[in-house]
Amino acid sequence: MEISNDLRDRSLSILNEFLRLESVSAGNSCINETASYLKDLLNDLGINSEIRRSTGNPVVIGRIDSRSRRIIIYNHYDVQPADPLDEWKTDPFNPRMIGKRLYARGVSDNKGTLIARLIGIYQALKDKIPVSTTFLYEGEEEIGSPNLENFIKSNKNIINGDSLIMEGGTLMGSRPVISLGVKGLLYIELSYEIGSSDVHSSMAPVVENPAMEIIKAISALSDGTDITIPGFYKDIRNLTEDEINIIKEYPVDMENIKRSLGVDNLKKEGSYEYAMSLFTEPTFNIDGFSSGYSGKGSKTIIPKRAVAKIDMRLVPDQDPNSIYRNILYKLDSVHFKGTVKMLGAEYPVRTSPDGDLSRAMIESAETVYKIRPVIIINSPGTQPMGLFTRYLKIKDAVSAIGVGDEHSRAHAPNESIDIDNFFLAIKHTYEFIKMYYH
Amino acid sequence: MEISNDLRDRSLSILNEFLRLESVSAGNSCINETASYLKDLLNDLGINSEIRRSTGNPVVIGRIDSRSRRIIIYNHYDVQPADPLDEWKTDPFNPRMIGKRLYARGVSDNKGTLIARLIGIYQALKDKIPVSTTFLYEGEEEIGSPNLENFIKSNKNIINGDSLIMEGGTLMGSRPVISLGVKGLLYIELSYEIGSSDVHSSMAPVVENPAMEIIKAISALSDGTDITIPGFYKDIRNLTEDEINIIKEYPVDMENIKRSLGVDNLKKEGSYEYAMSLFTEPTFNIDGFSSGYSGKGSKTIIPKRAVAKIDMRLVPDQDPNSIYRNILYKLDSVHFKGTVKMLGAEYPVRTSPDGDLSRAMIESAETVYKIRPVIIINSPGTQPMGLFTRYLKIKDAVSAIGVGDEHSRAHAPNESIDIDNFFLAIKHTYEFIKMYYH
Repeated sequence: MEISNDLRDRSLSILNEFLRLESVSAGNSCINETASYLKDLLNDLGINSEIRRSTGNPVVIGRIDSRSRRIIIYNHYDVQPADPLDEWKTDPFNPRMIGKRLYARGVSDNKGTLIARLIGIYQALKDKIPVSTTFLYEGEEEIGSPNLENFIKSNKNIINGDSLIMEGGTLMGSRPVISLGVKGLLYIELSYEIGSSDVHSSMAPVVENPAMEIIKAISALSDGTDITIPGFYKDIRNLTEDEINIIKEYPVDMENIKRSLGVDNLKKEGSYEYAMSLFTEPTFNIDGFSSGYSGKGSKTIIPKRAVAKIDMRLVPDQDPNSIYRNILYKLDSVHFKGTVKMLGAEYPVRTSPDGDLSRAMIESAETVYKIRPVIIINSPGTQPMGLFTRYLKIKDAVSAIGVGDEHSRAHAPNESIDIDNFFLAIKHTYEFIKMYYH
Repeated sequence: MEISNDLRDRSLSILNEFLRLESVSAGNSCINETASYLKDLLNDLGINSEIRRSTGNPVVIGRIDSRSRRIIIYNHYDVQPADPLDEWKTDPFNPRMIGKRLYARGVSDNKGTLIARLIGIYQALKDKIPVSTTFLYEGEEEIGSPNLENFIKSNKNIINGDSLIMEGGTLMGSRPVISLGVKGLLYIELSYEIGSSDVHSSMAPVVENPAMEIIKAISALSDGTDITIPGFYKDIRNLTEDEINIIKEYPVDMENIKRSLGVDNLKKEGSYEYAMSLFTEPTFNIDGFSSGYSGKGSKTIIPKRAVAKIDMRLVPDQDPNSIYRNILYKLDSVHFKGTVKMLGAEYPVRTSPDGDLSRAMIESAETVYKIRPVIIINSPGTQPMGLFTRYLKIKDAVSAIGVGDEHSRAHAPNESIDIDNFFLAIKHTYEFIKMYYH
């Protein structure tokens, strides 16, 4: 596919209009206007669309029905707040080109991606490439998609499909990244309270220490190397040979990784060992621990309370709900008397690299970018992909086709994309559709 | 001894003058004036006195030399800041009697005690009871006595003695409390830093978690019940039968203790078990633990840093410096790569209840208060008593003769004493001197 000057102008003009809408979900501004804009845009492009109420912000659904095999494309029309405003060199809601980069809030995450995919499919329609797509555009991704699960559960009939493309997709240098899945998540909070105020530490022989009680609970769940929650590892799916090969191919530059993370050391030394851990290891990570006094010098108290926040990233086919039950069981067995709360649960997904979706995505990327894409068997992080695969029984799901690169500063001031990546994403969508429906 | 009206008026007038001096060591106000006032006061009362420079605030030394056996009396002339001022019902530096209680900052901790002891000994002198005393009045107790150790080390010749009375001493109901010693202290800080900023928790397979590293270090030192520092328990002195009897006599009202501490539970159920733990168990207490995010909801990060503060209360004859060395050794053996700092060390002291000092103190208390005093073999908390017993080879040391009671609110707004307790403390000092030199 070549992009005509007309299409180029039209897609850029749409993108600019869309970026001007200040659809900050955290501030709840311009949300309904943006949903309306999208609905009208889809209709203008010849795609049936409607706004559907959710228990939160409205969801825009677009449908094309010309084939029996259906692709769901998930994006979101909301963006992060733009502040701190004084760190922007341009107006975040007045998009501006500087050199080859377009600056605006949301241009990378993920309005640029949304529009590129939409234009790619619009062009496929115009070229009579048959396609069945459901576009699902939610308006709460940047506040954690609190209503997406309910929405999917109660709209199964209109968002059924065979495969799914999530919002993700980014570039490592000039290589597009294709994630064949996501890790799952279980987020818990442990807390322990002894009373209404701190107690003088001379009373330590007779008064429980809440921080120590939390430490004992954590130690019952992980020894710092292995996770000791009963049955934690038992459901983990074996890697196929293809998946192992994909991991082997992952480009690792240890010095660059350390520099960009700002850390002095990594737990893994070799590239393969690093990549194998990153993509296949489930984790038990302490996000926060707070108790008592941590200022300068010493204060001798038994803190009245301690709280720890822990996230576990899960790999296929671990089940966050079953793991949570086993945590409760284990903490009970060590007589933990504090409070346990589940703050989040998402299911892991891993799609076969041999499936139709993966193959079309990888091959079309090679065609368009003229380079081997970076393939990962699942992202080390989490997206709500599991909601679709579980509730809608969708087998194949990927995160791919995006416009951001390592300079894009999503969520930060001066968010930007290289405009060439926008056109490449249009082409990639188009070529993907062609190959998927071949 | 009966207190004459003259002595009554004079001691009250001195106390009121002394309380008017705003000797807040944290604010460094009025420190030199207060030291001068004390020096002049001692001289007026016929006691040789001088101001000695320390590496911090001046120390006032008073000496009476009429016997070979010498008592050191330690007090401090500094007080805590008075704020929050709007919670005082009187001016904190303008003492005022309401009913039988005198309100002023420092009246309980410990200007009332200082003056009562001084007047008691002045009266003994007047009554020709021979006494050798060194008064040591420092001006930095309320900021942690940072220069006392140096001062004692470099003034051994003028503060030598046979026995020591520390600043403590309080009343439980109408019963004076006599502490025959103090627990020691070792305060450490553990910290671990992975780099300059938090890292996305998807990197947990390859980036160390500082909070978990601290938890592993703490778990190497204590399992929450037993302290697993090598040799931690080996130097603990056995209790004598007399000491066990003293512990058995300690009055315990579990419900009242829980209420006053504001805690729902205590680790010990029976009175004897409670008292035995409180006075004889060394502790390992987490004063604070801080790492990462602890606000509402979830945030998925590997925190850049974790820090824990831990105090250990030590019993005779545990040595904080040797325990600290064993902590370093143990943490090294479990490959802890973080930072360990010692923030404080004090030696435990326990004086025989059969010694001359203890017996005179207990018997004189019974004479004056007409009730059996509450005796404890050592306080569950810490005072810098060990500096005297170690560097000056003083064998017998107690904390006793004080003016505060459970309503005194030391360090808080509306600090006060029952003025009868001031006169009782004068009498107690006088009778103690008589019995000690009998």
